[in-house]
Amino acid sequence: MACKELFYLGPEGTFTHQAAMEAADQLRPYVGGDEDDDGEITLTALSDVPAIIDAVQQGRGWGVIAWENNVEGYVVPNLDALIDSTDLAGFARVGVDVAFDAFAVAGDDPLNGHGGDEPVIVSAHSHGLAQCKRFIAEHHLRAVPASSNAAACRDLKPGRVAFGPRICGDLYGLDTLAERVQDFEGARTEFLVLARRDDVRDLSSRFREHGTGEFETIITFIPLVTGPGVVANVLDILRDAGLNMTSFMSRPIKGHDGTYSFIDTLDAAPWEPRFREVLETLATHGIWLKTLAVYPRRERPNPPVDAWMLPQGGVHLDAMRIERDWQTAATVERELLW
Amino acid sequence: MACKELFYLGPEGTFTHQAAMEAADQLRPYVGGDEDDDGEITLTALSDVPAIIDAVQQGRGWGVIAWENNVEGYVVPNLDALIDSTDLAGFARVGVDVAFDAFAVAGDDPLNGHGGDEPVIVSAHSHGLAQCKRFIAEHHLRAVPASSNAAACRDLKPGRVAFGPRICGDLYGLDTLAERVQDFEGARTEFLVLARRDDVRDLSSRFREHGTGEFETIITFIPLVTGPGVVANVLDILRDAGLNMTSFMSRPIKGHDGTYSFIDTLDAAPWEPRFREVLETLATHGIWLKTLAVYPRRERPNPPVDAWMLPQGGVHLDAMRIERDWQTAATVERELLW
Repeated sequence: MACKELFYLGPEGTFTHQAAMEAADQLRPYVGGDEDDDGEITLTALSDVPAIIDAVQQGRGWGVIAWENNVEGYVVPNLDALIDSTDLAGFARVGVDVAFDAFAVAGDDPLNGHGGDEPVIVSAHSHGLAQCKRFIAEHHLRAVPASSNAAACRDLKPGRVAFGPRICGDLYGLDTLAERVQDFEGARTEFLVLARRDDVRDLSSRFREHGTGEFETIITFIPLVTGPGVVANVLDILRDAGLNMTSFMSRPIKGHDGTYSFIDTLDAAPWEPRFREVLETLATHGIWLKTLAVYPRRERPNPPVDAWMLPQGGVHLDAMRIERDWQTAATVERELLW
Repeated sequence: MACKELFYLGPEGTFTHQAAMEAADQLRPYVGGDEDDDGEITLTALSDVPAIIDAVQQGRGWGVIAWENNVEGYVVPNLDALIDSTDLAGFARVGVDVAFDAFAVAGDDPLNGHGGDEPVIVSAHSHGLAQCKRFIAEHHLRAVPASSNAAACRDLKPGRVAFGPRICGDLYGLDTLAERVQDFEGARTEFLVLARRDDVRDLSSRFREHGTGEFETIITFIPLVTGPGVVANVLDILRDAGLNMTSFMSRPIKGHDGTYSFIDTLDAAPWEPRFREVLETLATHGIWLKTLAVYPRRERPNPPVDAWMLPQGGVHLDAMRIERDWQTAATVERELLW
C-alpha cells in the first residue's frame, strides 16, 4: 500500500491537526498510483510553518498550513511564505470550525464539588481564552494563558479546566465538561494542503480523472511598472475573459515596503483556455506571475447582496429616485467626509 | 486650556499605549479651538476595542486602534468594526516599531549570578515570546506565556525576565537588561486615531489651515450587483481619475460569507474634485460607499520594483526577448500549473 506523510503545525491537538485529519480522509484515494487501493497517510507534527515548508520542498511528503480565517482574515505570514517558496503549491483546501470544548482530566469534575474560595484555573492560548469569555464568567474561572490550546490540554492538571479543539479529548484522554463553549458560532479557518509543484500537477490531473470538473486557483502577480491604473488594467483583462474573482488583496513584497504584489482567488483552473490566455497576456506584458494553488472548487454560499446586509451608515442611493443636490445633504457629507 | 481624552487598548504599556503617546504628541495643537494654545490630552486604557469604539461614538473623546502590521497584515476585526460603526472615522495615522526590550525588577539581575540549574523564566504574550526566540535560546530561558506583554511587565517578579515595549521600563519602574531583543528588525504596526465623523471633518479643515496639503483616504464600497468585472469597473473609474491606490483588499460583509466589501487606500482627499467626482459616479451607480478615514499623507518609501526584489520562482518574461513556445517550457508549466 502506498504511504504519504502529512506535516502539520503541532503539538498534537491543534486546529491544524484537525484540518490535517480531515485532509487525510479526503485525500487517501490519491496517495498511490492505483485508484482502487486507498493509500495510508501518516500525520507528523512539526514545530513551525517554515519546517513544514522545508519538509514538503525536500520531497518528504505533503503539508497543511492555515490560510484564511473568516474573522481574522488571511494568515499573512503563511501567504508570504507560499509566495516566496521555491517548489510548493496548494492542491486541496479544507475548512475547520473554530470551536472549543472544555476539558478536565479523566474522572475529575473541577466545575463542581470544589468548596474552596479560590477560583478554578482555566488554560488555553490567549486567543482561545478571548473566544470563551462567557463560559469563563459563568463558571467564575481564572484564565491563565498557555503557549497553545493543544499544550493546555496536554499539560492539564487535576482540578483545572482547559479549552481546546474537540480532538484533544481523545488525544489526551480527557473528559469533555462542555461542548462548543466559544462565545460566537460561525468562526472558521481554512487550510491549504501543499505538495511539490510537479506533484500538484499530477494530483490535479487525477482529480479530473476522478470526476472533479470545477477548480479554484490562487495566483499572485507583481507589475514591475507602478502607478495609477496598473491594477485596473490587470482586472480589465480578467473581466474581459469572464473570470470571477472571489478574493483579492494587495501585499507589500516581503521586505520591501512600498512595493506591491497582488493575490487573487479565481473560479477557474489555469489550464482552461480563457484563463491560460489571460496568464499569457499578463506574462507578455512583463508582469511577474506565479500560481500558488489549484484545488477542487468549494461549495460556497453565493447570496445576493441585499440592502439589509449593508453595514451601518454609509451612502446608498436608490438609483430610481436620486434627489437633487443629494451631494450636499448632511448625511452624505458626513459619511463621505468631503 | 482645552482637554481631550484619548482611549487605547490597555493595560498600560501595550504597543497601542505607545502609539497613543505618539499620537498625543502630534495632536496636542488640535485639541482646542485656539491654535496658539496647545491642549492637554489624557490617555485612558480600556479593556477591548468595542469599548474604545463606544467611548468615541458617545462623544467622550478620541480613540486609537491598531490598523495594519507589515508582517501580519490588516487587523481585520478592527477593520470590520470601523466599517460597521455608526459615527466614527480615522483622522490620523501613527506607526510604532514592534521592538521588545528585556526587563527585570529594579536592582535585580536574573541573567547573571544565579548559580542554580533551573532555567530563568521569561514572560510575555505568546506572540512576543515567538518574536524573541534567539534571546531566549542564548540565555537558556524558559518561556511562560502571559495575557499581554504589558501584563508580563506589570506582574514581573524578582529572578525573572519579561519582554515588552520600551515604555514598560518607565511605567513599571523596571531595569532594562537589553534593548531590541526581537529576532527581526523592521516589524511595524500602524494605528488609526478615531473621532466622531463631524469632528473628523473639523479636524481635517484645521490640518489644512495648519498647512497640511496632502491627505490619504480609506474608503469601503459594496457593489450590490456581483459577478465578473464588478471590481474591474470600479477600478477603471479610479484609474481614469488618476487616483493612486496604495492598498486594496476584499472582505466578506461581516456575518455574510460569500458577499464582498472592498477596502481601498488612496493618495487623495475626498473633497478634491477628481476624487469627489469618482465617489459621485460610484454612488449614482447604486454602490454603497463609506469613507473610513482621512489623514495627513504619510512619508512612505516608493521604490521602483526591481527584478531582484521578486519572490523566488514564478514566471517573469523579458519583454524584449520572448522566446518561441515559451508557454510550454517546463518551468512555465510548473510555475503556472497549467
